[in-house]
Amino acid sequence: MTSPVDEFVTRNEARFLEELLEFLRIPSISTLPEHRQDVARAAQFTADGLKQAGLQNVEVIQTEKHPLVYADWLGAPGKPTVLCYGHYDVQPPDPLELWKTPPFEPSIRDGNIYARGACDDKGQMYMHVKAVQTLLQVHDGQLPVNVKFLIEGEEEVGGESISYYVPLHKQKLKADVALVSDTELFADGVPTLCVGLRGLIYLEIEARGPARDLHSGVYGGAAPNAVYGLIELLAKAKDADGHIQIPGVYDGVVPPDAKELESWRQLPFSEKEFLHEQVGSSALTGEPGQSVLERVWARPTFEVHGIAGGFASAGAKTVIPAKAVAKVSLRVVPKQDPEKVVAAVKSWVAANTPKGIQTEVRVLSASPAVSVNPNHPAITVAARVFSEVLGKPTVFTRGGGSIPIVGEFAAHLGIPTVLMGFSLPDDGLHSPNEKYRIANYYSGIRTIARFLQEYGRG
Amino acid sequence: MTSPVDEFVTRNEARFLEELLEFLRIPSISTLPEHRQDVARAAQFTADGLKQAGLQNVEVIQTEKHPLVYADWLGAPGKPTVLCYGHYDVQPPDPLELWKTPPFEPSIRDGNIYARGACDDKGQMYMHVKAVQTLLQVHDGQLPVNVKFLIEGEEEVGGESISYYVPLHKQKLKADVALVSDTELFADGVPTLCVGLRGLIYLEIEARGPARDLHSGVYGGAAPNAVYGLIELLAKAKDADGHIQIPGVYDGVVPPDAKELESWRQLPFSEKEFLHEQVGSSALTGEPGQSVLERVWARPTFEVHGIAGGFASAGAKTVIPAKAVAKVSLRVVPKQDPEKVVAAVKSWVAANTPKGIQTEVRVLSASPAVSVNPNHPAITVAARVFSEVLGKPTVFTRGGGSIPIVGEFAAHLGIPTVLMGFSLPDDGLHSPNEKYRIANYYSGIRTIARFLQEYGRG
Repeated sequence: MTSPVDEFVTRNEARFLEELLEFLRIPSISTLPEHRQDVARAAQFTADGLKQAGLQNVEVIQTEKHPLVYADWLGAPGKPTVLCYGHYDVQPPDPLELWKTPPFEPSIRDGNIYARGACDDKGQMYMHVKAVQTLLQVHDGQLPVNVKFLIEGEEEVGGESISYYVPLHKQKLKADVALVSDTELFADGVPTLCVGLRGLIYLEIEARGPARDLHSGVYGGAAPNAVYGLIELLAKAKDADGHIQIPGVYDGVVPPDAKELESWRQLPFSEKEFLHEQVGSSALTGEPGQSVLERVWARPTFEVHGIAGGFASAGAKTVIPAKAVAKVSLRVVPKQDPEKVVAAVKSWVAANTPKGIQTEVRVLSASPAVSVNPNHPAITVAARVFSEVLGKPTVFTRGGGSIPIVGEFAAHLGIPTVLMGFSLPDDGLHSPNEKYRIANYYSGIRTIARFLQEYGRG
Repeated sequence: MTSPVDEFVTRNEARFLEELLEFLRIPSISTLPEHRQDVARAAQFTADGLKQAGLQNVEVIQTEKHPLVYADWLGAPGKPTVLCYGHYDVQPPDPLELWKTPPFEPSIRDGNIYARGACDDKGQMYMHVKAVQTLLQVHDGQLPVNVKFLIEGEEEVGGESISYYVPLHKQKLKADVALVSDTELFADGVPTLCVGLRGLIYLEIEARGPARDLHSGVYGGAAPNAVYGLIELLAKAKDADGHIQIPGVYDGVVPPDAKELESWRQLPFSEKEFLHEQVGSSALTGEPGQSVLERVWARPTFEVHGIAGGFASAGAKTVIPAKAVAKVSLRVVPKQDPEKVVAAVKSWVAANTPKGIQTEVRVLSASPAVSVNPNHPAITVAARVFSEVLGKPTVFTRGGGSIPIVGEFAAHLGIPTVLMGFSLPDDGLHSPNEKYRIANYYSGIRTIARFLQEYGRG
């Protein structure tokens, strides 16, 4: 029972692949100024792709940094509107020497495309374009739903321009649901919808001790040390089991309900594999009584990313540092108020600053967690078609990281996001030899086309 | 009652000053390869100065890095031998913009010479040369003692060549006492002999967690963090009062005796000034029940100089660091065995390494403390003449830092060192606008000449 959509995709696989390879050849590294023109070329490629697919009102929107690309097809009045989001920029490819083939000369091996951006996010974003093209071809220029596309070129550098754009264009971007393919399958062949993401609070905690760096021979024993003061403070943040000791940081945490926990227990997850093949340390850490998936998906964290200050180069220098800055993040879970957590951390820092030290907390960002109601009609439809295409039950997972745009769509447009991604856990996002399975590219196009069809059916 | 020595120095003050200024014009920065020729010039200047002063067997000894300069006068059989040590190399002058006058164009203001190396150590080392010259002139080519000079050009970069040279030339360097002028007066006009120096153990403590840096969104809550593991470990090293918690680190510590403590109480020391004008923090720290001078002179310390690893640059990066290295030092006091302290730290690290973390301790250096018997005849004589020249009782202090050569003279030549320096606490060693009081240069020459005379008298 092959559908016309399936047939069309099958007939056009070679062409769809060739177009993606062409897209991947553009080194659109958004963080490197010398690639500014390449980023602009990738924006134009995206716009051309949308036009060629049959979308209308295609627009390359200039911003302070890299362009946004907009397009729509609104010929289905009364039907829901889907806002497709993705990004055409990529991470830098270094260290280059670890790539088996050059990052911007896509190479096909064992059914995978190896290239920077193959899955993050050119390959996945382009599936949306090809899905809409397929539907327009198969249905004589008609779509079963209205669609809008908003594609950015700054996802890898903080996404400032889109954050600025969305709240100013609520009417233009009005939709019933957003569709994002920037997550992964829980395991190969397992249809996966992500229905929760932790929020992120990123802080700098600065400690000051002496007025200037001092000689530890002359002053050691009597002068406060800013690095050590910060160490004393930060060590109090967690107990030996990893339970956060900052009063208020668990406020609002709602444990996953029994049904969600049960579904996580059904996931093909091996703690042993996670430890040995992914983490690679001698033991996992974290709160006892919480499974690993609970710890990474549903629990707040307190993480120290590094400390600047003092002497940390090769050799020996006996300095008592005057100043030290720690990079600290806290992950928050749904129902938690990031502002309250920030306030809790600030009070705790003030109360626990060691003698002779002065501290300051600077908030670099604070975004809430996101959760999607798994009973939302778009999610129900997505789960069904995903399962039909891959031939297995769809699993509902969460993600431990943040996708800020999902929170912004929720906050400013009031819409949930279907997080339907097709990459695999070992696809190497942000790493050398990033890859994307060609079969997943094709099944992604089929799944998304089918989702739009079925969602339009209502 | 002016002595012939005093008269000679007075008559030659202008010439002695001019020679020092010429010496200070040579930018003999031992750490900068582009100044290699300047360092060699300073060695030659030193050798020429020794020859001109009337010393014999003057030798510029080539080493792997910068030359040593040797000279002697051994015409007083039956009399004791004094080994004069100093260094002709200097620290880099940066930040240059903070100097009021160029560091290698000596400038005289308010009775001070402003130049890099003015007091550390060209000005002080050259006093020894001028003192011997004075005595040879005044006593018709005879000295009251035998003298040997060993001057190095690597003091500011670790002193490797002299460390290598001394144990290989025990016979050549045989002496009864060493004389070093690289310490300071406790306060202006207060004759000061330093009779104890803490030893230094410098360590790197490395922590490893995951096999590679991980994304804190994906793994945060379950994966060990190398930076945080190190923080947890290091925080256990001291309690909130600064008392070290590592078993064995206080083994062998002998408190200063009542007489020494009483003499410290007589020193013109203000804790308030120390806090506000020197340290500049909101409070001093350290072990309760110990005075500030005890804490910096007579107590072991545990200091963290910095942590490398993870992300510590501008902006935000959510990495769980795979590796972190802390630079750690411990100061040890007389009678402590540095090797035992190292072993104690290693056991403690192994016993306190957090779950999921692996640690390694690397020893960069471990040198014992030094103490000089204040009743040694050379010290007794030094204290007496120092007091006579400056007109005040001599005080006995200790230093919190290390002068490794003093330990090496003790270990390999079996001799104590008279630490008789003439710089002032605000002379700015290693800092911009380093200075040396001209009056102290002259009184230093007088004091040292008198010391050699009186020590020879027996």
